[in-house]
Amino acid sequence: MVKTHYIEVKTKGNADILDITSQVSGVVQRSGLKSGIVTIFCSSSTSALTTIEYESGCISDLRRLFDEILTPDRPYAHNARWGDGNGHSHSRAALLGSSLSVPFSKASLMLGTWQQIILVDFDTHPRHRKVVAQVIGE
Amino acid sequence: MVKTHYIEVKTKGNADILDITSQVSGVVQRSGLKSGIVTIFCSSSTSALTTIEYESGCISDLRRLFDEILTPDRPYAHNARWGDGNGHSHSRAALLGSSLSVPFSKASLMLGTWQQIILVDFDTHPRHRKVVAQVIGE
Amino acid sequence: MVKTHYIEVKTKGNADILDITSQVSGVVQRSGLKSGIVTIFCSSSTSALTTIEYESGCISDLRRLFDEILTPDRPYAHNARWGDGNGHSHSRAALLGSSLSVPFSKASLMLGTWQQIILVDFDTHPRHRKVVAQVIGE
Repeated sequence: MVKTHYIEVKTKGNADILDITSQVSGVVQRSGLKSGIVTIFCSSSTSALTTIEYESGCISDLRRLFDEILTPDRPYAHNARWGDGNGHSHSRAALLGSSLSVPFSKASLMLGTWQQIILVDFDTHPRHRKVVAQVIGE
Repeated sequence: MVKTHYIEVKTKGNADILDITSQVSGVVQRSGLKSGIVTIFCSSSTSALTTIEYESGCISDLRRLFDEILTPDRPYAHNARWGDGNGHSHSRAALLGSSLSVPFSKASLMLGTWQQIILVDFDTHPRHRKVVAQVIGE
Repeated sequence: MVKTHYIEVKTKGNADILDITSQVSGVVQRSGLKSGIVTIFCSSSTSALTTIEYESGCISDLRRLFDEILTPDRPYAHNARWGDGNGHSHSRAALLGSSLSVPFSKASLMLGTWQQIILVDFDTHPRHRKVVAQVIGE
């Protein structure tokens, strides 16, 4: 059984990090499936997904990492070619990854106590994001 | 068909890297399924998964990467806020990722000859880890 | 329903980046399945997968990132131990990841308009790569 849903969020861009755990959990519950995986996917090349303890310290530390290894304050070939300012956003998203699969059992996500699912919007301005959440199971 | 199992390991923490390939392979074989994917998932925000050639050189090189881009020897906002010492562990785990899906066929993982599945425990002390290994297939 | 296919490509190595979207899309269409996920997997420890806007600027920026955080121009323990020259290739591949799951609906990959699936061959010489593309769905 496969159920395809979307999660829609508004972001501020600039490495805005959103906790989408409750929306993903809601998708799993509404699917009616009891065990399987939910594959969350950013249909975008400037946003990405991972898990983290969602508290302001960890969020700030993760953003600093990307500011250091992929700072916006230098030339990017993407910007030079297209007149964009989001070259760093593309490399950041490619590195962190657009896809995340989380198993569930008894209709509950098998996350740790201090672990949340986050969407990171690396683009340089606010965006409306439509994230795919597809449930496969039984 | 969905089968949910756990793999339990003891780690030393501090970027201890464990080869869990044989345990994952065992889960697939015991599932009775012949083809599909096994989704391995860390229900934790300070450990992560990937694949690598599991030999001491590659292990050492990977640990050096994380020591360089996310050294423990600097302030982290997570530490400042919670009095923890594992701020670097959180960012490392978020970057490497908590989920890995490996296809199998004829009940065998489709890994390369020199490719193993590893659990990296980035926390700062020894931990008992319970990793989810969920098999979906037929 | 599970369908296991392979995508075969020739690479130049040295962080050669190939757009394999059309091959993955072809696998999904030939599977006869309408909705589900395709898990793409590198059975290799020196190549990796992600998504990106496949244009020469983004490609160049992503390669620069890896040249900076994992330059070939320094000693690697893997090289010291095995006499290889691809120690950096191993760490790069482990960081970026060997597995990618992309959902599809109505037999079409749910990618963004400017988003492609790429194989990055981090090895130091041209390779023939056989990538697994396994479709699960209904």
